[in-house]
Amino acid sequence: MRVVTERSAAVPLQQVKLNDPFWSRYIRLVREVAIPYQYEALHDRIPGVEPSHAVANFRIAAGREQGEYKGMVFQDSDVAKWLEAAAYSLAIHPDPKLEQQVDELIDLIADAQQPDGYLNTYFTVKEPTKRWTNLTDCHELYCAGHLIEAAVAHYRATGKRKLLDVACRFADYIDTVFGPEEGKIHGFDGHQEIELALVKLYEATHEEKYLQLAQYFIDERGREPHFFHQEWERRGKSSFYASVSGAPHLPYHQSHLPVREQKVAVGHSVRAVYMYTAMADLAARTGDASLMEACENLWDNIVHKQMYITGGIGSTHHGEAFTIDYDLPNDTVYAETCASIGLIFFARRMLELSPKSEYADVMERALYNTVIGSMAQDGTHFFYVNPLEVWPDACRHNPGKHHVKPVRPGWFACACCPPNVARLLTSLGEYVYTSNEDTLFAHLYIGGETAVSLRGNTVKVKQTSELPWSGNVTFTVEPQQAAEWTLALRIPGWCRGQAVIRVNGEETTGLIREGYAYITRTWASGDTLELALSLDILQVRAHPLVRANAGKAAIQRGPLVYCWESVDNGAPISAVTLAADPKLTSRFDPDLPGGAVVIEGAGWREEAESWNGELYRAAPRQAKSATLKAIPYYLWGNRGENEMAVWIREEASLV
Amino acid sequence: MRVVTERSAAVPLQQVKLNDPFWSRYIRLVREVAIPYQYEALHDRIPGVEPSHAVANFRIAAGREQGEYKGMVFQDSDVAKWLEAAAYSLAIHPDPKLEQQVDELIDLIADAQQPDGYLNTYFTVKEPTKRWTNLTDCHELYCAGHLIEAAVAHYRATGKRKLLDVACRFADYIDTVFGPEEGKIHGFDGHQEIELALVKLYEATHEEKYLQLAQYFIDERGREPHFFHQEWERRGKSSFYASVSGAPHLPYHQSHLPVREQKVAVGHSVRAVYMYTAMADLAARTGDASLMEACENLWDNIVHKQMYITGGIGSTHHGEAFTIDYDLPNDTVYAETCASIGLIFFARRMLELSPKSEYADVMERALYNTVIGSMAQDGTHFFYVNPLEVWPDACRHNPGKHHVKPVRPGWFACACCPPNVARLLTSLGEYVYTSNEDTLFAHLYIGGETAVSLRGNTVKVKQTSELPWSGNVTFTVEPQQAAEWTLALRIPGWCRGQAVIRVNGEETTGLIREGYAYITRTWASGDTLELALSLDILQVRAHPLVRANAGKAAIQRGPLVYCWESVDNGAPISAVTLAADPKLTSRFDPDLPGGAVVIEGAGWREEAESWNGELYRAAPRQAKSATLKAIPYYLWGNRGENEMAVWIREEASLV
Repeated sequence: MRVVTERSAAVPLQQVKLNDPFWSRYIRLVREVAIPYQYEALHDRIPGVEPSHAVANFRIAAGREQGEYKGMVFQDSDVAKWLEAAAYSLAIHPDPKLEQQVDELIDLIADAQQPDGYLNTYFTVKEPTKRWTNLTDCHELYCAGHLIEAAVAHYRATGKRKLLDVACRFADYIDTVFGPEEGKIHGFDGHQEIELALVKLYEATHEEKYLQLAQYFIDERGREPHFFHQEWERRGKSSFYASVSGAPHLPYHQSHLPVREQKVAVGHSVRAVYMYTAMADLAARTGDASLMEACENLWDNIVHKQMYITGGIGSTHHGEAFTIDYDLPNDTVYAETCASIGLIFFARRMLELSPKSEYADVMERALYNTVIGSMAQDGTHFFYVNPLEVWPDACRHNPGKHHVKPVRPGWFACACCPPNVARLLTSLGEYVYTSNEDTLFAHLYIGGETAVSLRGNTVKVKQTSELPWSGNVTFTVEPQQAAEWTLALRIPGWCRGQAVIRVNGEETTGLIREGYAYITRTWASGDTLELALSLDILQVRAHPLVRANAGKAAIQRGPLVYCWESVDNGAPISAVTLAADPKLTSRFDPDLPGGAVVIEGAGWREEAESWNGELYRAAPRQAKSATLKAIPYYLWGNRGENEMAVWIREEASLV
Repeated sequence: MRVVTERSAAVPLQQVKLNDPFWSRYIRLVREVAIPYQYEALHDRIPGVEPSHAVANFRIAAGREQGEYKGMVFQDSDVAKWLEAAAYSLAIHPDPKLEQQVDELIDLIADAQQPDGYLNTYFTVKEPTKRWTNLTDCHELYCAGHLIEAAVAHYRATGKRKLLDVACRFADYIDTVFGPEEGKIHGFDGHQEIELALVKLYEATHEEKYLQLAQYFIDERGREPHFFHQEWERRGKSSFYASVSGAPHLPYHQSHLPVREQKVAVGHSVRAVYMYTAMADLAARTGDASLMEACENLWDNIVHKQMYITGGIGSTHHGEAFTIDYDLPNDTVYAETCASIGLIFFARRMLELSPKSEYADVMERALYNTVIGSMAQDGTHFFYVNPLEVWPDACRHNPGKHHVKPVRPGWFACACCPPNVARLLTSLGEYVYTSNEDTLFAHLYIGGETAVSLRGNTVKVKQTSELPWSGNVTFTVEPQQAAEWTLALRIPGWCRGQAVIRVNGEETTGLIREGYAYITRTWASGDTLELALSLDILQVRAHPLVRANAGKAAIQRGPLVYCWESVDNGAPISAVTLAADPKLTSRFDPDLPGGAVVIEGAGWREEAESWNGELYRAAPRQAKSATLKAIPYYLWGNRGENEMAVWIREEASLV
């Protein structure tokens, strides 16, 4: 077991006010565009967009109007995720109009709650006698979890208890339905989510039973005889989905084994990382060593064997799932946005358990690449699938790639990702720092101000950061009174140890442990710490077992992974080779959306000119030298439809 | 339009007796193992193999036993294809036991024929009132076509008319059901096949109406209002397959346009090439220029934009279909064996229309690589899918590759490919030569004896060939009387013009036209022609628009494409790079099944030793020099499950 004093907890959103040239723009985009747009979408008021019906379902369940339930069985969760995002937004940026919209929606939700506390519009409106008969498929506890997360966020943001009380009544009711006791259902949900939500509810209310219920769901999962199989037998071996036949596929739900015995990430990737997040939450609160070990095993498996360089996870769209170690195809990939968000949740929990820079590196990787890459610069179009290689014509005409879109679509029938991006970005402050009794850990370099209590001393810390474009970061501290405490700084993997720390102008190294520099000293008001991180351009290779990337390199600079688009480099993008010594350079290009550093270098471009209609020939290759240009991955697909690749061939550079 | 005298016709199987060190082994394997094995499989007598029920269906339809129809809706065609293969085998190798089995099966089929001539066990046994109500899905005319092909083959092999009479009665009946006349169905089948079969029936019987019916089916296809849509409306918009919803997908059936307007190969690849075969058959018999032009366009599209180097076609398993130009993924490929067989049918028809060596090159490519590669050396295991890159673990665990099998499976529930291989190999003699009034064309270099009539003069020609291992071919002619005629020899694309021809020891070139050397002289008994073809090892690249093969080379020697297996080169096979100057050499390896020429050369192998669990890193690649070994593609997967690739990276050899 780890040393307990290494543990830390996230600095709450209310205590972190971000103000960052790179990130504030995204957070503002979410606040000013995405949240209002999604509000309208949930109310079916966006012309030309398939109606969500999510709010309408609540209105019907609340008896405010007549009608039929429409949408996915988990449509309620879209409302809950929007509410959670709106609550975070209110926490960091008060807005009376938004607050009123939120209050009205909460009133509606409260009206839709049943007398016994139950709250789910699908079952209330459509199948009132079928509650809890199909946990495998029907997302009842998943929707409950999102409602609880929204309630906690709203309570913390506004101090208002109405939604929290709704959530507690619902959770209390769930606690009477599920559990080890005789007469209760000995089961759990097909889509993990309630587990991490109940931990949040416990944190907000200090009500032990919520923690115990989360623990119950985690412990019960994967036990034999298997709940999903029993439930399936009881339903006459039917599934909610007409296209699904046969018994539930347990690995899809990560319920093929008790969670402590799981060593390899399998199945639906969002379900997986939501569950691992809850496991880490519980391990932190109970000190359960076997659960912690399982979290470490699963983390290692994902990060060292199943993660794309962009922080995407889930190699196949079949079941939106993991496949096997090192199977990371770039063009048939799934890499759902929600899965990378869940990976960020998991990473933050692992950081709280133990400050290792790898956790923050992965959190940052997913955030700067897949998550912001999923959102168009207009805030209203989103990728669900985040490919590393795209040939638009093949996406249209090869059914194995139909799930890959070459440009960001608008609102989807299954609208899980956009509100998930919104709630992550509005709560981004919660991912920057953790703290414990005497240490403030800085995990992400995002400007802003925070205040924490260290040994009873209130310490204000102001961070400025020039990331991702340059590696200069400063911290100015303002403790209530001068005292000894520690500022622990993450040294990102991408700077490869090339980090210079100066305190009040004087270079220091501090104690380096697990990728963090621990600067312990008596900090006085006005003390400054400057951190200079090297932003070398890295030419990255994948492990030789990653068949898809053999002979190829990806470019990374700081936290940003780069990609090559045919609008800059010609089509097909596969015809491009990076020269043996590409002499890569970086420059700021103000013409890209928001402005961005691009990377240029020498390469070759194979030409088709000399081909006369043959498909195959024995003649040598012909290529012309070319200056190649890469842009940050998060910006791909913003200049019309074109080919894109993260990994490109490099001229043999064998040692 | 082409010069009419260029036209030729296949030399019938009865006139070609193959005797070839390479091919006779395969033909014997089919005769001695595959045909008896498939006979037992059709009779449900192979332990451990899913019952076919195909013969049982005929017994039930014939009233010989009680029971239910089982199997695919086109199960009858398995019996027909087996019968056709058995008939060819009888034509080239009389066998009283086999002939008796054939006769018994024909008696059974005749008993299953309905009084009006109709013959289809699915509809007779299971849905007697639903005849011709779902041409789109139910393969009635497809099964009829295979029965007709079997009947013609059997009649030609044995002179017995029983099955031919059955087929004629059925065709006569079909002719009363379909056609442009009032009261007939103005339609065609969902799976093309009857068209080419009716041409064969016409050739066997000289009954014009069969040719006209074939022409009708071809001409009617793709016309508006669309027959499949009308039929679908009449069925209440239902499909035979529960999983299929919506209107028939016309491109899948190549019925999206009138055939003469089709320029790009689309949809189900077997359907496509069977149709193109019939189109070429009709063009040859009617001189229809627009049909010929369509054939040429479709040929060009396939061969120059949609064909794997192995002669495989069909890039996706979704619909077993073509996708788009240059989309030739190696690992998610379909490349069904039957599709390559259909491509061979199409190529032979194009050769008959016009002797261009490209047609024979493609025929040979499909034959020597995909077709024989599909069959295990035991004659009882077959690939349906013929991948160019295989990672067995990914095939098991990534659902996008589940259709790709790393070793040849036994009999399938959908058993189309094994009997198709059997009927092709037993009739291989029909693909070697075509002739016209004064020219014998040698398209394939396969040893044996043939006899043709040229200007009324019976000419016997004996061919010996050392292909595919060496390029020495000889022809010895024995004309009834000395006379002038032409022996036209294909100069294969792979010898790149390096072909030496000697007549009676004296070098000659002949007239070279469209890849054929026309040797016109007065041939006397005992004259010999020696042909020496260069078998250089070719390092082949794909057109730069083939994204999947960027930076990679394939090895070809003579007609054989090579592949690299991890049993010889270590795993993963993706870690291998061919050196810039690989100094490729060939040697005969007697240890491979049947003995084969292997190719060896210098390369590099990236090692994972220096990696410490990272998935990505910026360090240079590390590789060790290695001697790499390639084996003929047709032998892959015969030494246990392992990784395989046809295309491997080459050290930059940019000009």
